[in-house]
Amino acid sequence: MRKIRVIGIGAGNPEHVTIQAVNALKTCDVLLVPTKGAEKEFLANLRREICDRFITERQPRYVHFAVPPRKSDGEYQRSVAEWHAAIAKIYEDLLLQQVGEDETVGLLVWGDPMLFDSTLRILEHVQANARVAFDYDVIAGITSLQALCASHRIPLNRIGKPVEITTGRRLSEGWPAQVDDIAVMLDGIRAYETVDTTDVTIHWGAYLGTPMEIGLSGRLADIGPEISKVRAEARAKHGWIMDTYILRRPIDEVDEDQ
Amino acid sequence: MRKIRVIGIGAGNPEHVTIQAVNALKTCDVLLVPTKGAEKEFLANLRREICDRFITERQPRYVHFAVPPRKSDGEYQRSVAEWHAAIAKIYEDLLLQQVGEDETVGLLVWGDPMLFDSTLRILEHVQANARVAFDYDVIAGITSLQALCASHRIPLNRIGKPVEITTGRRLSEGWPAQVDDIAVMLDGIRAYETVDTTDVTIHWGAYLGTPMEIGLSGRLADIGPEISKVRAEARAKHGWIMDTYILRRPIDEVDEDQ
Ligand SMILES: C[S@@+](CC[C@H](N)C(=O)[O-])C[C@H]1O[C@@H](n2cnc3c(N)ncnc32)[C@H](O)[C@@H]1O
Ligand SMILES: C[S@@+](CC[C@H](N)C(=O)[O-])C[C@H]1O[C@@H](n2cnc3c(N)ncnc32)[C@H](O)[C@@H]1O
Repeated sequence: MRKIRVIGIGAGNPEHVTIQAVNALKTCDVLLVPTKGAEKEFLANLRREICDRFITERQPRYVHFAVPPRKSDGEYQRSVAEWHAAIAKIYEDLLLQQVGEDETVGLLVWGDPMLFDSTLRILEHVQANARVAFDYDVIAGITSLQALCASHRIPLNRIGKPVEITTGRRLSEGWPAQVDDIAVMLDGIRAYETVDTTDVTIHWGAYLGTPMEIGLSGRLADIGPEISKVRAEARAKHGWIMDTYILRRPIDEVDEDQ
Repeated sequence: MRKIRVIGIGAGNPEHVTIQAVNALKTCDVLLVPTKGAEKEFLANLRREICDRFITERQPRYVHFAVPPRKSDGEYQRSVAEWHAAIAKIYEDLLLQQVGEDETVGLLVWGDPMLFDSTLRILEHVQANARVAFDYDVIAGITSLQALCASHRIPLNRIGKPVEITTGRRLSEGWPAQVDDIAVMLDGIRAYETVDTTDVTIHWGAYLGTPMEIGLSGRLADIGPEISKVRAEARAKHGWIMDTYILRRPIDEVDEDQ
């Protein structure tokens, strides 16, 4: 039976790969490499750097495929479903045409496959379609949120408190209920600009883990405009941006003052 | 100036360490090793295994210290604050007495220092106290939540949806508002038993990443009691347990059926 290994490679720093990921990469006969978006060249280079550095013996075959664009018209959930079905079809064809029945395929996933990534859902589609039989496992990778926290030397959560991980789209609908700490990803609309709660702190980072990494921390009301400026400049310069941030609003936390 | 490196070592599997962590370990002159709780022997062994496997050249000095117990009487936030202050004092003494002024100290943290861990907060105390000058950096590690998701081959979030990371204590006060997916840590009280929303799914795992790893998935109403039974037996057998889980309640997600 074919075997697929879904391997988290970290969110920008090649040294974020784990020993487990390195060992998994070494077992792969084929590596499937998605290409997409304006950042594709950067991502492709990172992938190549990781493979060149860590796959020291037998070289795998590389199979590149273009990720089809998601239709942005129509209902969100449905367009995502159609998009996943299209990618599932590509996986099926590639597995049948390019991968031998006893071979192992590696799927390199940005960050960790558990966080805002559709690879696992697509594999479920492929398995449900049953055109090609395979087994798969998942190897965790450092997420962009962890890279953000490490860079700012901050915890994600406050002591014993919950934290919500959400998207820019959701944050633009309002601060989530009952939580004072939120981590925001996939924010192409700069939803932080719409947050008007006083004394919110922001920890922001872009291109985390890469040589282009930038970060800013402070009171949102003070540095929000600067973040937007820095963000726009960086985006213009590199042609793409990936950024994420944590927002905290004050709570009565005894520990903070001791 | 002394340098402290706060190094996430993953949550149980020594192969979860990153290349960055391995390289950081190799720069350490001294490793501070906290010992605490019933799991201390297991954790000490894991730490030793990681160091023995990956620190191949110059061996660091190991400095063990007992983590003082947290007073469980009195107000929660305050007792945590007092506990942190006590640990900060220990760090200060160890740094002054056991670490040379130009030396590098490694602090090995379970999982990732960003997630329900107090090391970064304690270092802020030490810096604020200003008894000893040092610089520090943070190296991300695979968290137990990532180990849970990898083991169950599941994403943390559903498409475009938020997820809340919370504690057993908080969950026992009710399902959090406005979110359908929650990840629960630090649940010594089996708060999942109090969840009565119908058709909630649970993905549970204990000792993740270790040879004792166990996991169960299914409809909470069906397998909740089994989890409690398996949990009690494992805890009795090993003398300690660390477990975490994800709960999902149904939402109208088109993608799930396609
Ligand atoms: C489709 S999600 C993939 C997340 C990925 N699976 C992870 O574990 O981080 C893409 C989002 O992750 C965040 N992101 C990914 N890499 C990043 C980086 N190097 N710096 C900042 N944000 C990043 C951004 O919020 C971006 O919109
Ligand atoms: C004080 S928190 C530390 C979390 C850690 N910093 C991390 O990144 O996972 C301890 C909690 O993490 C979870 N945990 C840690 N290691 C685990 C493991 N190997 N298996 C299951 N749960 C674990 C449990 O919920 C436990 O109560």
